[in-house]
Amino acid sequence: MKNNLFLKALKGKTVNRPPVWMMRQAGRYLPEFIAIREKYDFFTRCRTPELAAEITVQPIRRYGMDAAILFSDILVIPQAMNIPFEMKEGLGPYLPNPIRSQKDVDATIVPDIDETLGYVMDAIKLTKEMLNDEIPLIGFAGSPWTILCYCIQGQGSKTFDKAKEFCFTQPIAAHTLLQKITDTTIAYLKEKVKAGVDVVQIFDSWGGMLSPKDYQEFSWKYIQQIIEALKDDAPVISFAKGAWYALEEASNSNASALGVDWTITPQVARKLTGNKITLQGNLDPTRLLSPPKEIKKLVTQMINDFGKDKYIVNLGHGILPNIPLDHAKAFIDAVKEYRE
Amino acid sequence: MKNNLFLKALKGKTVNRPPVWMMRQAGRYLPEFIAIREKYDFFTRCRTPELAAEITVQPIRRYGMDAAILFSDILVIPQAMNIPFEMKEGLGPYLPNPIRSQKDVDATIVPDIDETLGYVMDAIKLTKEMLNDEIPLIGFAGSPWTILCYCIQGQGSKTFDKAKEFCFTQPIAAHTLLQKITDTTIAYLKEKVKAGVDVVQIFDSWGGMLSPKDYQEFSWKYIQQIIEALKDDAPVISFAKGAWYALEEASNSNASALGVDWTITPQVARKLTGNKITLQGNLDPTRLLSPPKEIKKLVTQMINDFGKDKYIVNLGHGILPNIPLDHAKAFIDAVKEYRE
Repeated sequence: MKNNLFLKALKGKTVNRPPVWMMRQAGRYLPEFIAIREKYDFFTRCRTPELAAEITVQPIRRYGMDAAILFSDILVIPQAMNIPFEMKEGLGPYLPNPIRSQKDVDATIVPDIDETLGYVMDAIKLTKEMLNDEIPLIGFAGSPWTILCYCIQGQGSKTFDKAKEFCFTQPIAAHTLLQKITDTTIAYLKEKVKAGVDVVQIFDSWGGMLSPKDYQEFSWKYIQQIIEALKDDAPVISFAKGAWYALEEASNSNASALGVDWTITPQVARKLTGNKITLQGNLDPTRLLSPPKEIKKLVTQMINDFGKDKYIVNLGHGILPNIPLDHAKAFIDAVKEYRE
Repeated sequence: MKNNLFLKALKGKTVNRPPVWMMRQAGRYLPEFIAIREKYDFFTRCRTPELAAEITVQPIRRYGMDAAILFSDILVIPQAMNIPFEMKEGLGPYLPNPIRSQKDVDATIVPDIDETLGYVMDAIKLTKEMLNDEIPLIGFAGSPWTILCYCIQGQGSKTFDKAKEFCFTQPIAAHTLLQKITDTTIAYLKEKVKAGVDVVQIFDSWGGMLSPKDYQEFSWKYIQQIIEALKDDAPVISFAKGAWYALEEASNSNASALGVDWTITPQVARKLTGNKITLQGNLDPTRLLSPPKEIKKLVTQMINDFGKDKYIVNLGHGILPNIPLDHAKAFIDAVKEYRE
């Protein structure tokens, strides 16, 4: 790898400056992404290796991040499990038949990955060729809890109350589903590594909706299974939005890094994780609406607060569609210009 | 006061069992509330003292909580400040002309409370008569930051990105608006205490959307002004959803109690607040969808974990509209049946 800053940070090695990438960096703030979106719908973009690979490298071409992340969606997993969904532009995913019973859970399958998700592997191979060993490629999956949220709720939600109700009133069915998602995700991520991704990240976007006790039972337990199953294949980054309360326990896992959102100071995040694991984050994505000069100041301060080692600069969640291009550039440039 | 459990807990005095009430207890899970809602629209319910008082005492009649909270809305404040809004049933508040500039901020006023919000005072007087000194009455206001969120965004939001953008790019205008809201809120809460409320609660529903540093600048600073201004009038409860990171600082304020949401364990909440302040919370509102027997177990465990003293049993946020009546009853009864 010509630029191995990202892999070095994941191993906790000393670096001159921390690596940087942005969650959702291949996304709607980029005019070149919008141009593709205008021609091809969501599923075509995901399933056409040439399009997925092109979208993946778009932000790298423009800004030169230290890692690429394969364009895809966390919901390809339930789709492969026989839980169909539609993507409504602007509104997000919509499941015409959400899961509501043990019978619905029994109707889902743990699929053959090659058969159902072979197009992802093709996209990985193509992307790796395009990246030409310049920077590492990240492959991702949703956490089983986050996937369950959509499968039960049927769409995005402020509270995911139906998903929680399902877990609280039908725990056996919930755990059966979570285990099936977990098994599928492990097989999927292993195939992705075989196809060429260098690192995997688990997105637990809705973990923080659960109480600390419920998080252990319905989310972390399954993330941990994935980490254990993947740890010898590739470095695993676990990102749980809102679940600051689980950082201490997560720091004792075999994850190579933990992602943190912006509602925790670098100092507290370091304290809770005992300085022993690489952290990734955590600028408030809305802060990229600040003037570029201020963005640079905030990034420098953030690096100083986390420390340049065992650290990957990122946002605290995905980049928003309304971020001006020069603001995204200021974020990346501030890291590249960083000097102790 | 015949039942002074709530006031005793706010003073940190020893009690046989902790007091209990529920955020949004006068709300949509009650058929008697729905019956009134079918006849009278939102503004009529808020502005007709007889209706507001009746809605306030409805849950008390049914469940016998240890405190009542006056039916009203946090947006009566911006309304009085010359920022009109509409209430769309099911969708929440909608501001046809959200604030976007210093000029818009300058057009807002710090109103005369009697002139603009006299109907709230009438509702308080009537409610106090109806309660007949059985239990205390809580009056509430939104935090200035939470009010600003609606004034700028114009409606509910998952990220309140426009509100944050306003603060990050027009900080002078933002602080001018926050101070005007603060001044209005202080005058409003003082009038409420004069009219008869025994306790005031500040709801910072969207505080947790801010990073710890931005929270200090755009939210806590103003909440603190309100606490300081009110502390000699009535006990103040400060509830900030998501802002666990500010608990330590808040515990050093002159608030009588701090509300906490369900994403923190009682043990950590006690630790962060150094055991020195009354805490209120924090069952996940969605947990009221669990079977009643399990609800009772969770409540008992929660009281044991917080400790019965310096503690007010509540949910971690408002009760959801889809909670069955006997589940709400199980929550309240579990507290009343509590024995050490």
